[in-house]
Amino acid sequence: MARSRLTAERESELYEAVIDLLGEVGYDGLTMDAIAARTHSSKATLYRQWGSKPELVAQALRHHKPVRLDEIDTGTLRGDFLEMVRRSDDCRMEKDSAMMRGLAHAIHSHPELLQALRELLIAPEMTGLDALLRRAVERGEVAADNPALRLVPHMMIGSFIARPLIEDRPVDQAFLAQYLDAVVFPALGV
Amino acid sequence: MARSRLTAERESELYEAVIDLLGEVGYDGLTMDAIAARTHSSKATLYRQWGSKPELVAQALRHHKPVRLDEIDTGTLRGDFLEMVRRSDDCRMEKDSAMMRGLAHAIHSHPELLQALRELLIAPEMTGLDALLRRAVERGEVAADNPALRLVPHMMIGSFIARPLIEDRPVDQAFLAQYLDAVVFPALGV
Repeated sequence: MARSRLTAERESELYEAVIDLLGEVGYDGLTMDAIAARTHSSKATLYRQWGSKPELVAQALRHHKPVRLDEIDTGTLRGDFLEMVRRSDDCRMEKDSAMMRGLAHAIHSHPELLQALRELLIAPEMTGLDALLRRAVERGEVAADNPALRLVPHMMIGSFIARPLIEDRPVDQAFLAQYLDAVVFPALGV
Repeated sequence: MARSRLTAERESELYEAVIDLLGEVGYDGLTMDAIAARTHSSKATLYRQWGSKPELVAQALRHHKPVRLDEIDTGTLRGDFLEMVRRSDDCRMEKDSAMMRGLAHAIHSHPELLQALRELLIAPEMTGLDALLRRAVERGEVAADNPALRLVPHMMIGSFIARPLIEDRPVDQAFLAQYLDAVVFPALGV
């Protein structure tokens, strides 16, 4: 029997459903049954196409594109960061932050998942952020030996995780802009 | 039959085991069976003493004291923060960070757990941190209207969550000291 391919659109729907479910029930609660039910597909299709849950989740992460930092180049560090905020819509940020919570424990008990997350989401973001910060150093906006340069991802991740935890509110564009002004720019001496 | 009480020491052991297991298997994977096996106690004892898993976890959190910020008062903001780092031993920080990851998803699907975490761990930390920052403002070390004042918890949580995620290394005292110097103090203008 010829292996029937899903359409690209159908595949996108499936991946989005996996990301949503991750945020709702976490990695351990995410079953092939739940994915099949949510997407109105058969488990047979899921297994034929992806083989296993870790593979399906890794593919869903690969498909789930973060804001493309490498497309941003406004000419100033402040401008680049504010453009990054402008491109992050509130609904998407809430979904991403739920997904990260859903993965938080799983990535430490499933090393292959942490590996996938690093390669597919964290590494591209870090590369984009590095490029953006390197340009700021070259323009003389930030001192090359500023120790906060390598801590920008830590500051940003903090804003995403801490707000729901402490304030019981999701991260939104207004909060991110305040956080940049109060924390990130002063640490970078901008 | 008279309800037999556990000794305080035995209770402490049980709570520590619950915290360890939370870090290892996450809240959803934490079963009364696993707790009974790890602590060599009977499930009957656990249910008699705590009634249910959420109650047992809430009590374990209550028992798991964070660094007591309200005992710290060195006379300068820098001194207070460095004393906080000095009192946080590396092994304890690694355990706490595993526990937080284990709880990350669960607290969003179990509101009573988030409530317990807020009341028992977050609120006392926030109160301690507030007092420490208020003194710095009174001494004139930090401007009263510095917008980073209310974002210190976000910055600190970022350092804890992001390092294992990005660098695959646990938070330790040396890293925390660097983070304070590079991020927290500049944001506060100290």
